[in-house]
Amino acid sequence: MGEFALIDRWFRRPAAAQAAPGVALGIGDDCALLAPTPGMQLAVSTDLLLEGRHFLSTVDPRRLGHKALAVNLSDLAACGARPLGFTLGLALPAVDEDWLAGFSAGLLELASAHGCALVGGDTTRGPLAIAITVFGEVPPGQALLRSGARAGDDLWVSGTLGDARLALEVFRGSLSLPAPVFEAARQRLEQPTPRVALGLALRGIATAALDLSDGLLGDLGHVLRASGVGARVDADAAVGLLAARRAAPPDVLPELARQRALVLAGGDDYELAFTAPAARRAEVEAAGRATGTPVTRIGQVVDTPGLQLVDGQGHALPLQAYASFDHFA
Amino acid sequence: MGEFALIDRWFRRPAAAQAAPGVALGIGDDCALLAPTPGMQLAVSTDLLLEGRHFLSTVDPRRLGHKALAVNLSDLAACGARPLGFTLGLALPAVDEDWLAGFSAGLLELASAHGCALVGGDTTRGPLAIAITVFGEVPPGQALLRSGARAGDDLWVSGTLGDARLALEVFRGSLSLPAPVFEAARQRLEQPTPRVALGLALRGIATAALDLSDGLLGDLGHVLRASGVGARVDADAAVGLLAARRAAPPDVLPELARQRALVLAGGDDYELAFTAPAARRAEVEAAGRATGTPVTRIGQVVDTPGLQLVDGQGHALPLQAYASFDHFA
Repeated sequence: MGEFALIDRWFRRPAAAQAAPGVALGIGDDCALLAPTPGMQLAVSTDLLLEGRHFLSTVDPRRLGHKALAVNLSDLAACGARPLGFTLGLALPAVDEDWLAGFSAGLLELASAHGCALVGGDTTRGPLAIAITVFGEVPPGQALLRSGARAGDDLWVSGTLGDARLALEVFRGSLSLPAPVFEAARQRLEQPTPRVALGLALRGIATAALDLSDGLLGDLGHVLRASGVGARVDADAAVGLLAARRAAPPDVLPELARQRALVLAGGDDYELAFTAPAARRAEVEAAGRATGTPVTRIGQVVDTPGLQLVDGQGHALPLQAYASFDHFA
Repeated sequence: MGEFALIDRWFRRPAAAQAAPGVALGIGDDCALLAPTPGMQLAVSTDLLLEGRHFLSTVDPRRLGHKALAVNLSDLAACGARPLGFTLGLALPAVDEDWLAGFSAGLLELASAHGCALVGGDTTRGPLAIAITVFGEVPPGQALLRSGARAGDDLWVSGTLGDARLALEVFRGSLSLPAPVFEAARQRLEQPTPRVALGLALRGIATAALDLSDGLLGDLGHVLRASGVGARVDADAAVGLLAARRAAPPDVLPELARQRALVLAGGDDYELAFTAPAARRAEVEAAGRATGTPVTRIGQVVDTPGLQLVDGQGHALPLQAYASFDHFA
C-alpha cells in the first residue's frame, strides 16, 4: 500500500466531516489552510511520542490514538485555547491494517469530540513514532500562561493524580494490584482526559496554568520560575488525589510515602495545575462543576521562591524523593 | 543534560530575536501564541524525517538542520504562503553537543533568512527523527493549490532537477563522478533551496503548483488528478534541468535514459512545478527574474487525463521506467 492510499483509507474523512469551522482546506494539498477567527491568537503545541519511551509496545492502538492527541489537547487546555485542528506525522514499521484501523479510530473519535480536525500529515516507514502539532484559538491577552501566579493565590489541580504511574509500575513489575484497581489505573495511563472545557472556563479566573505531564512538583517548578514566586504544597491533600485510594482497600496499595511519590512525581497525568486568587475560590469551584471536572486545592503560592512540601500538620517533608522525570536524565 | 536545558542552550534565541512579527509568545509555555494578520489564512504543513530513510547518517548536521526546515518551507512556497513560524520535534539517540550545535545553526540560519521563528518544540531520546510543522500566511483565495490547472496552461519547473538523486546514487555506489561534479550535486541533495520568494511572486499568475519531493512525474500526477486534466511533458526539455549536464563533460555522466530517470523520477528536488496560462508567459519569466529563480517550460496541460511523455521530436516515450518513489512501496 502506498503512502497516499494509507492516508486516504484511514485518516481522511468525507469532505463534509472535514469542513470544520476554521478549516478552509484539509488534507491533500502541499499545505492545509486554516481560517482563524480574525483577531484571535493561535495557540500551537507539538509532541513527539516514541514507542518504548512514551508508550508500551503492547498498548491497544485505539487507546494510543486517543492518548497521542489527548496529550496535545492537554497543552491547549492549559492555555485556555479552543481546539481548531492538528497535523499528524506517523512513522510505522509496517502497514498493519488492524493497528491502523484502531489507531485512527481512537485518534479521530477524540478529535471529533473536541471539534479538532486532522488537517494534514506525513507518513513514513520507520520505528513507531507519532508527531502531532495541534492548533487552537484564544482571544489576545486571555491565554493562561505560566507566568501569572502571585503570592497569596491558591494552588489547584484538576481531576486525579498518580494513577497513571501506578499502572506503569504494575507493568514494570514493581507492584501488583487487584484486577479492577489496575484496570482503572491503566485507563488513566492509556486514555487521559484532556481538560479542554475546564481550561476555557478558567480564562479570566486562573492567574497561571500548565498541564502536568512529567510529575506535579517538577512541572510546578516551571510555573514558579516563570512567575518569580514559590509555593507550599500540602502532600496530604495531594495524596488524596490518587483515585486508587478511593477504589481499593488500603492493604493492596503501596505505603503512604510511595503513594505520595506517585502523586507528586509520577508523571503522565495530563491534568491541569493552576493558580487563582483566594477571593475567586467560588468561581473556580463553579468552573469545575460547570465542566464536570473535579478541582482540588492543594496549596498556596508564596513570596519565597522554591517549593515547600508539608504534611497535613504543616510539618516540612523532604523534596529530594520527588525529583521530576526527565526525558534526557 | 536535561530536556529543558537542551532546548535553552541550542534552540532558544534572545527574546528580541524571537519577537518575530506574528509571534506573540515563543518557546517556553504549554503553547506558543501566533498572532496572524487578521483576515489572513494560515497555511500549515508537516514533515517527519528519519535517519536512513530521508537522510544519511553521515550527513553534516548543519546541512541536515537546513534541509529539515527547507523541505517544510518548500511546502509553504508551493502554496504561495509567507513563512511565519515552525515547531520542532526532535528525537536524539544521545545529547551530542557538536551535532546539536551544527544542527541548530543550520536550522536557525535558514529560519532567520525566511523570517520563520522557532516557536515551540519537544525533545526526547530515541532513534534520530525530526518532526517539523511550519506555518505561513496567505490572503484568502490566493493560495496556490493543486486543483487549478487548465488545458492549454504551460507546465513550468523552477531551478534544476535530478542532481539530488545523482548524488544519492554516488553514495549508493551505483555511479561515480569527478569530485567537483559530485560536490555540486551533493549540495542539491543536502541543502535544497526552498523557492519561497518565487511562490509568493506566482500568486495570481500560476493556476496550480506543488513542490517536488518524490519525483517530477509522480508528483505531477497529484496536480493532474486534483485538476481533472492531463499533461504532455517534453523529456528533452526536462533533462536539460540536470545541472550536472552543464558542469560535467558528457562522458562522466550516465547515459541519456538514466539522466532522464534522474530528472523525471529522482526525487528530493524541492523545486516547484506549476502551471500558468500561455498568455502569462512573460509574467512567469518576470517572477523568475525578480526572485533570482530559473524557471523552465517543460510541457503543456491537456484535456486528456494522464501523462504523456515525449521527446524533442514529439515521439512518445514509455512512462513505466519512471515510477515515483513511495515511502511505503
